[in-house]
Amino acid sequence: MAQKPSIPKGTRDFSPNEMARRNYIFDTIKSVFKLYGFRQIETPAMENLSTLMGKYGEEGDKLLFKILNSGDFMKDVRDEDIASRNLARLTNEMCEKGLRYDLTVPFARFVVQYRGQLQMPFKRYQIQPVWRADRPQKGRYREFYQCDADVVGSDSLWNEIELLSMIDMVFSRLKVRVAIKINNRKILSGIAELIGAADKIVDITVAIDKIDKIGIENVNAELREKGLPDEVIERLRPLLEMSGSNAEKIQALSTMLAGSETGMKGVEELRTVIEGFDALGHNCIADVDVSLARGLNYYTGTIIEVKALDVEIGSITGGGRYDNLTGVFGMPGLSGVGISFGADRIYDVLNQLNLYPEGVSQSVKVLFVNFGEKEAAAAARIVKSLREEGVAAELYPDAAKMKKQMAYADSSSIPYVAIIGESELEAGVVNLKDMASGEQSQLTPEKLVEKLSEIH
Amino acid sequence: MAQKPSIPKGTRDFSPNEMARRNYIFDTIKSVFKLYGFRQIETPAMENLSTLMGKYGEEGDKLLFKILNSGDFMKDVRDEDIASRNLARLTNEMCEKGLRYDLTVPFARFVVQYRGQLQMPFKRYQIQPVWRADRPQKGRYREFYQCDADVVGSDSLWNEIELLSMIDMVFSRLKVRVAIKINNRKILSGIAELIGAADKIVDITVAIDKIDKIGIENVNAELREKGLPDEVIERLRPLLEMSGSNAEKIQALSTMLAGSETGMKGVEELRTVIEGFDALGHNCIADVDVSLARGLNYYTGTIIEVKALDVEIGSITGGGRYDNLTGVFGMPGLSGVGISFGADRIYDVLNQLNLYPEGVSQSVKVLFVNFGEKEAAAAARIVKSLREEGVAAELYPDAAKMKKQMAYADSSSIPYVAIIGESELEAGVVNLKDMASGEQSQLTPEKLVEKLSEIH
Repeated sequence: MAQKPSIPKGTRDFSPNEMARRNYIFDTIKSVFKLYGFRQIETPAMENLSTLMGKYGEEGDKLLFKILNSGDFMKDVRDEDIASRNLARLTNEMCEKGLRYDLTVPFARFVVQYRGQLQMPFKRYQIQPVWRADRPQKGRYREFYQCDADVVGSDSLWNEIELLSMIDMVFSRLKVRVAIKINNRKILSGIAELIGAADKIVDITVAIDKIDKIGIENVNAELREKGLPDEVIERLRPLLEMSGSNAEKIQALSTMLAGSETGMKGVEELRTVIEGFDALGHNCIADVDVSLARGLNYYTGTIIEVKALDVEIGSITGGGRYDNLTGVFGMPGLSGVGISFGADRIYDVLNQLNLYPEGVSQSVKVLFVNFGEKEAAAAARIVKSLREEGVAAELYPDAAKMKKQMAYADSSSIPYVAIIGESELEAGVVNLKDMASGEQSQLTPEKLVEKLSEIH
Repeated sequence: MAQKPSIPKGTRDFSPNEMARRNYIFDTIKSVFKLYGFRQIETPAMENLSTLMGKYGEEGDKLLFKILNSGDFMKDVRDEDIASRNLARLTNEMCEKGLRYDLTVPFARFVVQYRGQLQMPFKRYQIQPVWRADRPQKGRYREFYQCDADVVGSDSLWNEIELLSMIDMVFSRLKVRVAIKINNRKILSGIAELIGAADKIVDITVAIDKIDKIGIENVNAELREKGLPDEVIERLRPLLEMSGSNAEKIQALSTMLAGSETGMKGVEELRTVIEGFDALGHNCIADVDVSLARGLNYYTGTIIEVKALDVEIGSITGGGRYDNLTGVFGMPGLSGVGISFGADRIYDVLNQLNLYPEGVSQSVKVLFVNFGEKEAAAAARIVKSLREEGVAAELYPDAAKMKKQMAYADSSSIPYVAIIGESELEAGVVNLKDMASGEQSQLTPEKLVEKLSEIH
């Protein structure tokens, strides 16, 4: 069968160098999650299809990877469904399980399943791959990681402030300049109420989003085209002309939405979150943006989105508050708020800007060259001492040509090479070469262990 | 649909406490892999079925989870296969992909696919879940983790010695007492040669394994039953009576197998590995065990298996040398040697013996009680300073009843609770309570940050 092996389209292998870079991102996110008291859970890759179906819309159902039942998968298949090639019913008859599509629905399922054992508020983080049968394209994969942190069981806006602060810390640590955009779903509801056109709210947010690019008159023309009456467009003018600081925008919204109770609640929430975040101090820009409407049907309060300032790429992190995540599993009334870091896009950003710390791909600190059995035996003892001191070290396993052993050190970004040849063995010393500077020094084994333990 | 949600049988959710324990194990294994210069790779959960099928025997093919093609999965299905309910052909027509069954075949696929870019010897580790449609039972899951470390492209027995040393370090760090059993496939071949009954080698290893339990005469009776002639059984006697130290066993094998070139090569390899391992010093017992025959068709040299001494459970780690892992993908002649830590069984062992370090489930170091907006705002600033110093800390998000907030601290194993009430706010101090001792102290925010930064 010796065909050249490959992997399914839309999936990826990660080499040691890629893993080192990805781990740098995951470890950074994870360390921040932990500093903020989020605790890790994991859920299985396979969920029952009854858990997944109907949660992501009709299109989402099609994008779920379904797993063929093991054993006789044909036993519940009905002839009429075969005859009519009824794919939905055949799927249902042949597959009980699917791969998770995101981490949110499994989390909701988890919360409901273990409701009796969870102490509320429950702050969890989860870093696992998800699978979508999307058409693969640049930057879109069929298997990719999500890094989610959510709090359920608390209505407090402190949670929103903490999430913003967490975003600030993650990107400060990664040295990525970002802007956080913030909105509130209730403000959008207030606007819809005000103009008496709830069904037009998506058109309106899309239009607002274009103001900077095409100007207010073109936006108004577009809204007219979408069927909004002139009188409504006039009422939207303060929204479209809104500018200045967050405080000024909040003031304008507060004036405009005075007649909508829901809208005013949204404005107050937004004010509390922005002021709370500002009071704590932060590095990144946080901008009120009423055009932000991600997952309109899903969020019920704060909406958050993060964009990189120095790379043209979509949102790299997003989230918000939802009030009925667990309702679909029979546990209504539990409020939650969370964010999801898009690890794969963040990886693209760091790659483009080359923001990795020096030595990120370094595997071990020192490679001992192998000159034959006697020399290798002496080296192996020193390697053991180094490892016991926490210094990653290797002995090249074969007494291969020097050139080959050096190429190995080079390809693994190993900063030091230690040589024990016949003369060193006799003298009881090691010749240590700094690969960057080319400098060499002769050390006793003890001194060498000491020296390498001290270098970080 | 509000049915009580559940997960597929044979799969598991992991709670924060379980994750903390599992991460302790994974992190320990990972840190040792790194100290020894193994570098991480990851491969996709889904592989092409052409990569997976035929690699695990006929039974294995049935245990692969297959993924239904997305889109019109019926388009290549032939009516005659439906009519005859030909499951193998239908699977083939409807499914291109499957979930990986282990990490070994994906690794072999990886090595062949990127052969031009890999520097040999290539030392990789991989820690990822695998899936098997096995009947679930106690200790056997349909989704579980494997932790594999392999070296390909080097014949040197130093690799074996390193792997043994790695096993020793992992279990020393985990404080699990283990025995390593070692054998060599060539010794088994030599025995088969010697007695002229290659097809009986499995029966023989099974019989040897029972010596301690049933005695040599019963073993001989069993071998006779299996059809071995008396004369052959007599020739096996030195093997069955073998006892004493590793050196004595190796001596006995060397006498017995003098007539078999392959057998003698196995004995020499075994001697080199055992002596090399002993010369470096180690904590665990390493025992020559000629009854060890795991994966007989797979291994070609050293065979390793690890058992816990204090818990009745199967092998918790195993591995060995294989000479043709990549041959099936068109790259023959590449020798490899590796081990696989059975994380789920190791988890069971640590749970049974309760070997986790104190504080393994601890989430944050301090919880700030929330007494209302003004107090919370002051607490939030201190929480921020703590996090900047690397101290995990939380503010309870709601001004809930004290009892509820304390229950939260308790359930998350938080060792300190900080209180800023009205009087503390006025005095500019924090009341810090040590949850274990009940001791309370009043500190300035600066002193509190200093104190908690110093406690590990």
